[in-house]
Amino acid sequence: MSDSAIAYFTEDDSVAAVTGRVGSDTDPRLAKVMNALVSHLHAFIKDVELTQAEWAQAIAFLTKTGQMCDGNRQEFILLSDVLGVSMLVDAINNRRPDGATENTVLGPFHVDGVPEMQMGTNISKDGVGESCLFEGRVTDLHGAPLAGARIDVWSDNAEGFYDVQQPDVQPQPNNRGIFVTGEDGRYWFAGIKPVSYPIPDDGPVGQMLGHLGRHPYRPAHMHFIVSAPGHETVIAHTFVKGDDYLRSDAVFGVKKTLIADYEATPDAATAWRSTFDFKMVPEAAT
Amino acid sequence: MSDSAIAYFTEDDSVAAVTGRVGSDTDPRLAKVMNALVSHLHAFIKDVELTQAEWAQAIAFLTKTGQMCDGNRQEFILLSDVLGVSMLVDAINNRRPDGATENTVLGPFHVDGVPEMQMGTNISKDGVGESCLFEGRVTDLHGAPLAGARIDVWSDNAEGFYDVQQPDVQPQPNNRGIFVTGEDGRYWFAGIKPVSYPIPDDGPVGQMLGHLGRHPYRPAHMHFIVSAPGHETVIAHTFVKGDDYLRSDAVFGVKKTLIADYEATPDAATAWRSTFDFKMVPEAAT
Repeated sequence: MSDSAIAYFTEDDSVAAVTGRVGSDTDPRLAKVMNALVSHLHAFIKDVELTQAEWAQAIAFLTKTGQMCDGNRQEFILLSDVLGVSMLVDAINNRRPDGATENTVLGPFHVDGVPEMQMGTNISKDGVGESCLFEGRVTDLHGAPLAGARIDVWSDNAEGFYDVQQPDVQPQPNNRGIFVTGEDGRYWFAGIKPVSYPIPDDGPVGQMLGHLGRHPYRPAHMHFIVSAPGHETVIAHTFVKGDDYLRSDAVFGVKKTLIADYEATPDAATAWRSTFDFKMVPEAAT
Repeated sequence: MSDSAIAYFTEDDSVAAVTGRVGSDTDPRLAKVMNALVSHLHAFIKDVELTQAEWAQAIAFLTKTGQMCDGNRQEFILLSDVLGVSMLVDAINNRRPDGATENTVLGPFHVDGVPEMQMGTNISKDGVGESCLFEGRVTDLHGAPLAGARIDVWSDNAEGFYDVQQPDVQPQPNNRGIFVTGEDGRYWFAGIKPVSYPIPDDGPVGQMLGHLGRHPYRPAHMHFIVSAPGHETVIAHTFVKGDDYLRSDAVFGVKKTLIADYEATPDAATAWRSTFDFKMVPEAAT
């Protein structure tokens, strides 16, 4: 190759200089993803003409974000959440026909190993908060009930914390349960009406939100994972209608179809009742 | 606002959902940079239809990269380097007219506080390596010599390590010097002919290079920072012509105009001679 034919790095040809280096034995999907990343990343930098000082700030921010992560805190997932990346990836990977229950983010507070409970059990083990009955049906797209559907639920407590965020507070687990539907596809359990809460905002991501004039709050919601044999698993929340933060969820998790009625009841033992039906789509043939 | 007018997050409108949250009091430059970042980042994810598993891999990679950073190791700068980001930011911020000496990356091994030396001093304090005389002139774009130009130079040793990478090896500093030109704008000093070396590749970035079929080597080079009163500071390397890695520098630092002749000499005391002239542009009026 003559010297003049060598593709040295230039501002104009920066993408080709980098993507041209990928080896021919590279996994094709990895090559595609990395080359697209380089292309979009360079386009971003050219678009804003990033300064050296801004680059140095970005390096420092990413470094702090990584160093904030430990077994209990995942600051990079938080970053992904507040930039809408987590919801976008969820949306792309869970496209469903109209009428089917939509997905939303799993969030960092799900735990495995919660015992299955008898339908109707109260998952609020400390009894603190406004009592609420959750009930509804799991059906296919045509409304036929699905038996044997597993319903994994969890929510924050009356102070806005999940039990795993307060490991020293008993009882554990609290505000978590697993239920399995019978022939009628119905579910019902007691708990508390969830409350809105801030995502952890004492790290670099919280600081970034502050600089952008954004608050760290999520609207109140009950988490659900609903899995029925032969159907796509639904990961969703039911949001409390009327919550102040529905229009500004810090992690963009709200979908209009996931906003549920929470109705006051005249019953002294159960202050609220929330009804929500899950409509499941068949698993994609593989 | 009616419920139907609320811009909940959707796959199609993901960018507007996020950028629409930025507060009106936000610093305009920060808002511009962050909104462009979100726009390009979402475009990347849509372009490749990133899977949930790939997203999880990306989170784990970024977390490891942050956790690899400490006072002596900056893995995020390494990531920026191997993706061509460092060179792109450098190119955008140091556009110069034809004929002017081009910039390249500073690299992580520059140190402050090296003493000024008399012109001609040998910066190789251990005497190990192939001896080389470096010489040339600092001029303006028209070839007029610049007096009082400060020339800050450093290179690796014969084993491919910078002194700061081997803090327990004496003497320190080694292969570093600072020289100031006289009225003729000339500089000359002795050192060793630099050798090619790998960037640190025992972390996540090195692993990524491996998956992409890329080697971690940089072609041999002598580092220069040249600053002359009233002129833009030049950060550059002079690369050794003929080096095996000129066409595949792991960090894309090579520019054709920065490849220097390193000529063998008949002189027993100095095996090589490298001549390179620096042509400086006036500082931008402010």
